[in-house]
Amino acid sequence: MLKVKTEALEFVSQTRCCGGTQFVCRHRSEVCDTDMTFAVFLPAEAENGPVPALWYLSGLTCTHENAMVKAGLQAHAAQAGIALVFPDTSPRGEAVADDEAYDLGQGAGFYVNATRPPWRDHYQMYDYITRELPALVRSALPIGAAQGVTGHSMGGHGALILAFRNPDLYRSVSAFAPIVNPTRSDWGRKQLSAYLGDDEAQWALYDACALLAERGWDRDILIDQGTDDQFIDLLRPEAMAKLLAERRQPGVLRMQKGYDHSYFFVASFAGEHVKWHAERLMAA
Amino acid sequence: MLKVKTEALEFVSQTRCCGGTQFVCRHRSEVCDTDMTFAVFLPAEAENGPVPALWYLSGLTCTHENAMVKAGLQAHAAQAGIALVFPDTSPRGEAVADDEAYDLGQGAGFYVNATRPPWRDHYQMYDYITRELPALVRSALPIGAAQGVTGHSMGGHGALILAFRNPDLYRSVSAFAPIVNPTRSDWGRKQLSAYLGDDEAQWALYDACALLAERGWDRDILIDQGTDDQFIDLLRPEAMAKLLAERRQPGVLRMQKGYDHSYFFVASFAGEHVKWHAERLMAA
Repeated sequence: MLKVKTEALEFVSQTRCCGGTQFVCRHRSEVCDTDMTFAVFLPAEAENGPVPALWYLSGLTCTHENAMVKAGLQAHAAQAGIALVFPDTSPRGEAVADDEAYDLGQGAGFYVNATRPPWRDHYQMYDYITRELPALVRSALPIGAAQGVTGHSMGGHGALILAFRNPDLYRSVSAFAPIVNPTRSDWGRKQLSAYLGDDEAQWALYDACALLAERGWDRDILIDQGTDDQFIDLLRPEAMAKLLAERRQPGVLRMQKGYDHSYFFVASFAGEHVKWHAERLMAA
Repeated sequence: MLKVKTEALEFVSQTRCCGGTQFVCRHRSEVCDTDMTFAVFLPAEAENGPVPALWYLSGLTCTHENAMVKAGLQAHAAQAGIALVFPDTSPRGEAVADDEAYDLGQGAGFYVNATRPPWRDHYQMYDYITRELPALVRSALPIGAAQGVTGHSMGGHGALILAFRNPDLYRSVSAFAPIVNPTRSDWGRKQLSAYLGDDEAQWALYDACALLAERGWDRDILIDQGTDDQFIDLLRPEAMAKLLAERRQPGVLRMQKGYDHSYFFVASFAGEHVKWHAERLMAA
């Protein structure tokens, strides 16, 4: 089993998987001011030195665990020789603000830095995912600087906004059934209003379509979307489709016939997404 | 979406997956005298006619669902063009006898035909898996006669005993961390005693090592076993290893370094097991 530096991390579990190791870790997050749990898969290649990492951001109600056990990503990451990082979707715990609705509060951080009470004390997921957690995993585990980001639904939203705002941090981006236009969706307006307040100009920093329209993205993009997705009206793929075409943006938006919003959809295309990222992360 | 005959089956869900379809079905089992739930994955090739099937038998406490969502088998079955069938591990319901222990009663059918009260009224899993359910899935779905069987832990036990007792029904067999010698294990003696009574001669019909020693198996066998399996003393791989060598039995027993008993272990070798079965099921 791989040796790791353990000062900053508590290792909840280490499980042999696909020739590598699946870790579940806990640590104290300074930016979220609470304990956080996340998972990492390291391929066999990590025994010889740092490997590139693909970040997988999960959707509403998920923890680090759902994709770790249901998306089948590890077999593909093992083949490609890259690591996977599965963060949680929000801060958690009794001291952390929450809401009775499944789509606000714990399990629904939307990858924003909240500025409004009661959320701003702990809901700093944007800084957590872009700054704190990458520094931690690189210091404690054999994970290199090259990283890509993907995600599902709310996590697809997270992947796109993180990449578009940080082209220096992410070499590659893809998404499964992402919320691409939250400022125009009931999966977005309610949450951005709660976390950021009523000034909609602030919301645009967390809207993939708005960011792409304003800043562009000088690499390509892969998005898969099921045609039978039960939440498709909330995801608004048509907004991204229009933008890709109008901007002549390099990228692939695949409307996948008959697929819904489930992990069966994610697992069906997990291999192609991992390969997409690996090719770009391994390139010089 | 594939058309299926629905008289005998209730389709709980149909989900697009890996170019094929993941079904969850419910039906009335005559041999178990209760409703039963199972899952089937059909690859794209099933749209053109019957395909071979690999049966996956699950372990203690599992339903049809665990392996369906956690083992990652569908991507491999899609590539090989074979179906997967995931039965439940016991009859279920308020009218069905149960025990407070996790390893007896519901979720722990051990793939036997019980002969003792209170179990004999519903616990007829051997007949259910070998006779009733294959006839049903072949009549209602595009599944052909060629079938193999695999499973995990208690389900690995099931796979081995079903194949060894029915070489005419199963062309191929493999197992993940199987209970190979239940008549000598606390995962076996308690259950066989409850379901079959105290005459240990009856137990031998449900012991893979006893069956292989007595009847042989004229094809090969694939067994994977993790060296760090937390239940390895109950599984008794050494009994099967000795028997394979003594009998000059064609087969592969792989002691996989560092792997435990989890689905991460199953998922790590799922691709190789599916390929093993597909090669044998596709052969003329």
